[in-house]
Amino acid sequence: MEYIIGVDLGGTFIKAGPVSKQGNLLYEISIPSQAEVSPESVVSQITKAVKTITSKYPHDKLLGVGVGSPGLVDLDGGTVKYPPNFKNWTVFRLGDETSKSTGVRVEVENDANAAAVGELKFGAARSFPDFIMVTLGTGVGGGVVIGGKVFRGQSGGAGEIGHITINFEGPQCNCGNRGCVEAYVGQRYLSQRVSDQLIFHHDSLINRLIDSGVEHLEPKIISQAAEQGDSFALEVWKETGMYVGVAIASAFNLFDISTAVIGGGVAKAGKPLFDAITETVKLRVLSPLRPMVKVVPAALENSGILGAAALIAE
Amino acid sequence: MEYIIGVDLGGTFIKAGPVSKQGNLLYEISIPSQAEVSPESVVSQITKAVKTITSKYPHDKLLGVGVGSPGLVDLDGGTVKYPPNFKNWTVFRLGDETSKSTGVRVEVENDANAAAVGELKFGAARSFPDFIMVTLGTGVGGGVVIGGKVFRGQSGGAGEIGHITINFEGPQCNCGNRGCVEAYVGQRYLSQRVSDQLIFHHDSLINRLIDSGVEHLEPKIISQAAEQGDSFALEVWKETGMYVGVAIASAFNLFDISTAVIGGGVAKAGKPLFDAITETVKLRVLSPLRPMVKVVPAALENSGILGAAALIAE
Repeated sequence: MEYIIGVDLGGTFIKAGPVSKQGNLLYEISIPSQAEVSPESVVSQITKAVKTITSKYPHDKLLGVGVGSPGLVDLDGGTVKYPPNFKNWTVFRLGDETSKSTGVRVEVENDANAAAVGELKFGAARSFPDFIMVTLGTGVGGGVVIGGKVFRGQSGGAGEIGHITINFEGPQCNCGNRGCVEAYVGQRYLSQRVSDQLIFHHDSLINRLIDSGVEHLEPKIISQAAEQGDSFALEVWKETGMYVGVAIASAFNLFDISTAVIGGGVAKAGKPLFDAITETVKLRVLSPLRPMVKVVPAALENSGILGAAALIAE
Repeated sequence: MEYIIGVDLGGTFIKAGPVSKQGNLLYEISIPSQAEVSPESVVSQITKAVKTITSKYPHDKLLGVGVGSPGLVDLDGGTVKYPPNFKNWTVFRLGDETSKSTGVRVEVENDANAAAVGELKFGAARSFPDFIMVTLGTGVGGGVVIGGKVFRGQSGGAGEIGHITINFEGPQCNCGNRGCVEAYVGQRYLSQRVSDQLIFHHDSLINRLIDSGVEHLEPKIISQAAEQGDSFALEVWKETGMYVGVAIASAFNLFDISTAVIGGGVAKAGKPLFDAITETVKLRVLSPLRPMVKVVPAALENSGILGAAALIAE
């Protein structure tokens, strides 16, 4: 059976696995990325992962290696520019070097864009050639797909949904701007906001579910409380969904798109979050788009690896 | 000499004129659009304008008629959908009907998109294949040009810069949303805001320049005061530029574009406004785009007619 190797390159780990052309992940390995060493070390580690997999699956059935990477990606040479938190890395032809080192075709794309391609090929967007992908995690990632292709812009930097300003007087964002949607719903900002408000909600279940102090307030604790009907937790997801919805409405108006696919850890909050996003978008988007608005959860469990593999399946 | 007829279709008037392939408007006529009657009346009026012009310029040198229209435009048939304030008009193949009636090629485009094409072909964006056009008038219009082509989206509705939310708790906008940039800087909103604040600025020159009450506060009066160094008037342009800059930064982040061309009546405020827009965008846009940011004034005096003519020059 022909297969692809999908590589999810992170600051700490490389996750990789063989993926069928239909998008089934056969198994998964995880090894250190050595991103704290150098670009060359990362190439060695990816090569090591590929060799581990081809020792088990026949090399001559391997169609290629897809890599989802942080940072700006130039498709020419699979060049990765300034990935945040990668040491000694400015501009590096990761695709070319990995192809030399492994002897197979290598495609590289920004991780948020790769996740969008994954949903398009294998996941929730299979019937939507035009959609906006939003990943709600530590940051808020974005990807825009138009006519079944990632909209990359001049230098591959397009689709930064997370840095849409939703309030010009809002909180400081890591990027230097104020009031980006990421500064409201990025995981750390979200946890901080909830921690700050907990003082006024002594009766919230969240207080009982935290066992190691508010500094470890994970979104899943808020979800657990919400599932048990905790009104403060439900309010948190409603507010979070409103923030996300405001940004999506702006993006819909600019791209003339009406479908959003939402993934990432925070999206596991499920119905209360999605209801609030949908309601907000419908209320705020321009009237011709309103009847078409669709907000759906991402479908891929391992979107990092599957999205990367989808780059080769294209 | 070969020429094009550019038609700027408005709710009250049609402005039209012969335009050389180099973008020179030879003369201009204005007749009622009869948009308050029916689509067919509008076709007759455009035809009348074309006949008036071809009675003076040879019909066999006419390359075609370009029409800039309000509303959503589908390029198929030059179909204009739901133009605001046009009576008895839902969906109408304006291009096809006008072509039948005049016997020449007719191209129709949304007026903001046409203005963008005009700046691209004849104006400030001749050396910028990728830019965002913003027109600051009664509303805030937008157009996005990528690789020398208007980015239209699925149904021609893309590029609605005016309806980017800059503050989710902001003032009510005509479109139904709150806090759109248009609800801050659209001419009526702007005049209202300045009127409201004037009470706290008795010493502002604006008070002396208004002769018929604050309800007639035109942007040019604010500009006259600003030119004379009035600190409140300068503050108004600084604030207005900040609002516009916030929206442009969001659009730049989404499209990976770094050039904006600003036109429309309010843009006549000039330097104090443009300085504030540029400063805000540079402060707020993602860092890879920051060094490339350019905000330039539109160059066309008659962008309505010239933009429409540029549709044929393409």
